[in-house]
Amino acid sequence: MSTDLKQAALDYHAQPKPGKIAIEITKPTETQRDLALAYTPGVAEPVRAIHQDPEAAYRYTAKGNLVAVITNGTAVLGLGDVGALAGKPVMEGKVVLFKAFAGIDAFDIEVDTHDPDAFIDTVALIAGGFGGINLEDIAAPHCFRIEKTLRERLDIPVFHDDQHGTAVIISAGLINAVKLAGKHLEDARIVCLGAGAAGLAAMRLLVTLGARREHILMVDRQGVIRAGDESVNEYQRAFAANTDRRTLADACVDADVFVGVSGPNLLTAEMLASMAENPVVFALANPDPEIAPELAQQTRQDVIMATGRTDYPNQINNVLGFPYIFRGALDVRARTINDAMLTAAVHALAALAHEPVPAAVLKAYDLASLSFGRDYFIPKPFDPRLIDVVPAAISQAAIDSGVARITQVIRP
Amino acid sequence: MSTDLKQAALDYHAQPKPGKIAIEITKPTETQRDLALAYTPGVAEPVRAIHQDPEAAYRYTAKGNLVAVITNGTAVLGLGDVGALAGKPVMEGKVVLFKAFAGIDAFDIEVDTHDPDAFIDTVALIAGGFGGINLEDIAAPHCFRIEKTLRERLDIPVFHDDQHGTAVIISAGLINAVKLAGKHLEDARIVCLGAGAAGLAAMRLLVTLGARREHILMVDRQGVIRAGDESVNEYQRAFAANTDRRTLADACVDADVFVGVSGPNLLTAEMLASMAENPVVFALANPDPEIAPELAQQTRQDVIMATGRTDYPNQINNVLGFPYIFRGALDVRARTINDAMLTAAVHALAALAHEPVPAAVLKAYDLASLSFGRDYFIPKPFDPRLIDVVPAAISQAAIDSGVARITQVIRP
Repeated sequence: MSTDLKQAALDYHAQPKPGKIAIEITKPTETQRDLALAYTPGVAEPVRAIHQDPEAAYRYTAKGNLVAVITNGTAVLGLGDVGALAGKPVMEGKVVLFKAFAGIDAFDIEVDTHDPDAFIDTVALIAGGFGGINLEDIAAPHCFRIEKTLRERLDIPVFHDDQHGTAVIISAGLINAVKLAGKHLEDARIVCLGAGAAGLAAMRLLVTLGARREHILMVDRQGVIRAGDESVNEYQRAFAANTDRRTLADACVDADVFVGVSGPNLLTAEMLASMAENPVVFALANPDPEIAPELAQQTRQDVIMATGRTDYPNQINNVLGFPYIFRGALDVRARTINDAMLTAAVHALAALAHEPVPAAVLKAYDLASLSFGRDYFIPKPFDPRLIDVVPAAISQAAIDSGVARITQVIRP
Repeated sequence: MSTDLKQAALDYHAQPKPGKIAIEITKPTETQRDLALAYTPGVAEPVRAIHQDPEAAYRYTAKGNLVAVITNGTAVLGLGDVGALAGKPVMEGKVVLFKAFAGIDAFDIEVDTHDPDAFIDTVALIAGGFGGINLEDIAAPHCFRIEKTLRERLDIPVFHDDQHGTAVIISAGLINAVKLAGKHLEDARIVCLGAGAAGLAAMRLLVTLGARREHILMVDRQGVIRAGDESVNEYQRAFAANTDRRTLADACVDADVFVGVSGPNLLTAEMLASMAENPVVFALANPDPEIAPELAQQTRQDVIMATGRTDYPNQINNVLGFPYIFRGALDVRARTINDAMLTAAVHALAALAHEPVPAAVLKAYDLASLSFGRDYFIPKPFDPRLIDVVPAAISQAAIDSGVARITQVIRP
């Protein structure tokens, strides 16, 4: 990041007032009468209504449009365990994205503990006032148990964006990329470098979508994760392979797909050269990908590539997912976000990339033209159609799978 | 409450959208560059700054202007233990008042537990992201230990409004009322009916302000709280009296001041008749006071009276306190709200009632004139001078008593 951008970011957060979010009053408060409705004595009526029927909270409070963005600060951006408070600017940034892209009122909560049980209990006790919980920047492997336990305990959506948000966007992109390669997901041999929250969730979702578990090799710092490895944690075990391949280089030979959620420059030109024809390379490490797009292109003209960066084609950006996934869930007061809803999001995003690109998108990105192909197989973040198509798909999947509290869309 | 008002309150909360608060973005988010500052990669800079120095959170996040309004729903309005979620409309109402009267961004958190230790741990773990904690509608006696423990554990203000907010307004009114009676607080014999959060906190603050502990009789459902009573809890013990008086009627004989924070019509005309001359009667039960103002006036023309109602003179309304107390505390990034700050609030409010009333106040209340006296000895909630004089007094008291992080006022 340039020194100029660093200073601009500090100024952006400090001037003219600290931070980037505030509370807004949405009803009149000018007169004594207004206040008698908003507070005592009038407020006793919605209190009574919710006391009688908790579902009335969706009618009389902010709950139905409210998502808690919650972290413990243990895996903030690429900076690691910076602590709960230092995670606050990122959580507030997520709040900004929820509002800007989907009109969702989100609020950030930083839970200052390294103890996953204390974290779980805290979130469970405060969850009732919210319509959904977005977990964020929580280190693996604790993040898996935290999310699983909270999903079981709560009757509102609990979503760990670093797992499932990332998995949705990767999957949407991969479906299209594999098609461009002239292959089928069912046949694709996939190497995933990075076996943490994002990698495991992406591979799980790809299996749900049709990829074969036995075609997947997960690779971490110790090499290919293999059956019987002692260092493998319980979450990685499902992907432990029966194979003689040991290294990333071994894994890449004849692979159809490489997904990197790891670190800079770990995929070498030699490894890429050893992959199958029309290799799909998702080099998602930020800011420096697993292989620089220039090097990849130079090594193989047939590469089909995505990165996490704004300045290359096909950015895998979570903002394509979480605002719309929660929008669709909130619109039907969903009790959870299930695989059917995630799958619906994947297909909606993948399908949108095939549609003709509207002028507004071309203008936002200063492009003369854009159409489905190697340079455009995933929608762009500033695409105004996203809010129309993705939440609708999610809401319908929630209704169809029986987790919606209401069976028509009522956007709060 | 009229049926009309009840329906209007439900409509107010439901239409056109549920609730009465939302999240607002305060910085630009139109372009990719804006988002690169608000979120990745730019947001890493404030993260690093706060990781190095937690105080930087006051410069780069919403923390410095942010108050958590937190309840467990055990003592909501006069409705009792309605549960955490049913308390949400009241907490959101408090959020509205914080914003409307003092420009403070507050956010409500409903903690769903009856276990005070679980409540304390939850609040302590999420507190770091806030500049202050306003506890609300938590039943006595748990509220005392909850507040005390959180004050000890946290380095931001923790304020139980039902205790200290109420105590500040009662004390400001009483100082002026006792003066109007031609008496001194030091000599005043005080009866307090209701020995819960508000009553105990008010009596404690009055003692700090000069009232004599031995002149105070606290009365609850069992009668006068006396030394040796077995039913007295540890918080009431400090006010257990050495006296032969047993009943409320006994206590009222020759009393100078009656403070009621109890229930409707508990102070009879006979009791009032037995009080000393120029009796000060704060009948604060809502909506029906301990004695109706008409009956009080009819019984004794020399009564000096306040209620909790908007439709009588001298309303004891917490909105005169908490927005400005927190405003003053946040303006100097105070570590706590101490007795010096509460006392400063009392004196600032009491003094303001002696000042000439500006035209804006007369207009807001549709009055031809208003000046200090029996019908006006406490400022009115819509007085625009409150935001100027009360926070300034609090900030100065915080600086003088050494609990301010900064020694000049920087309103965030």
